[in-house]
Amino acid sequence: MAAQPDQVGTDLPESHGDLLEAAGVGALATIAPDGRPQVTAVWYLLEDGRLKISIRTDRQKAKNLTRQPGATFLIIDPAKTTRTIEVRATAELTPDDGYAFANRIGAKYGLNLNEFDPPGSTRYVVTLRPDRVISRG
Amino acid sequence: MAAQPDQVGTDLPESHGDLLEAAGVGALATIAPDGRPQVTAVWYLLEDGRLKISIRTDRQKAKNLTRQPGATFLIIDPAKTTRTIEVRATAELTPDDGYAFANRIGAKYGLNLNEFDPPGSTRYVVTLRPDRVISRG
Repeated sequence: MAAQPDQVGTDLPESHGDLLEAAGVGALATIAPDGRPQVTAVWYLLEDGRLKISIRTDRQKAKNLTRQPGATFLIIDPAKTTRTIEVRATAELTPDDGYAFANRIGAKYGLNLNEFDPPGSTRYVVTLRPDRVISRG
Repeated sequence: MAAQPDQVGTDLPESHGDLLEAAGVGALATIAPDGRPQVTAVWYLLEDGRLKISIRTDRQKAKNLTRQPGATFLIIDPAKTTRTIEVRATAELTPDDGYAFANRIGAKYGLNLNEFDPPGSTRYVVTLRPDRVISRG
């Protein structure tokens, strides 16, 4: 991919606000127990100026984040794939009691997460606290 | 994102061959010196049954891969974002003398990488040798 001018900061940039608000999919990278990256596609919701993600507590990425909260989230503009935002963050996990957050993010994407999760599932809200944000394009 | 049935293996699955052949963009995660993930959007080319990527030798991800060759590559189907292929791989870096590979991947995407790189740039071919492949959707 050709070089693009980069913007580097510690805040989510207004220039990429449309991507942050879009009902898109991002790539969440966490560190597996062997020190290698794991990457999965996840939904996201911008709330109170923070990117937040909903994950089941029994997922490997939840275990990874509990052990190593350093995580990186990449959103690619589907309309112009050289335009991206990479958020290197510290992930803060909080219990999503009653699926309150899962319901909000589900509403954004038109899906009830409760209907897809196995009975008895629990979820975390993952709040990404940006340490370094690189936006391109 | 709702749970999807996963397929796990060590080969690139035929079920996701269209994604592997597409002129799409994937998310390449490498390990930064601080042990956290770095993720960037990259083009890819399937050659000889392997996913290959072209990167400039002076990029941080090249340094990351030289130190820690464990890397993960995620492709999301733009037409159905719950359909993904995650390739956890060992990256093999070889010098791309004369931009031979860069020209082949550039031809796939309709761009001459030579015109975008600073004069005197050099590139690696990154061949991803899959250790674990998880396909979803």
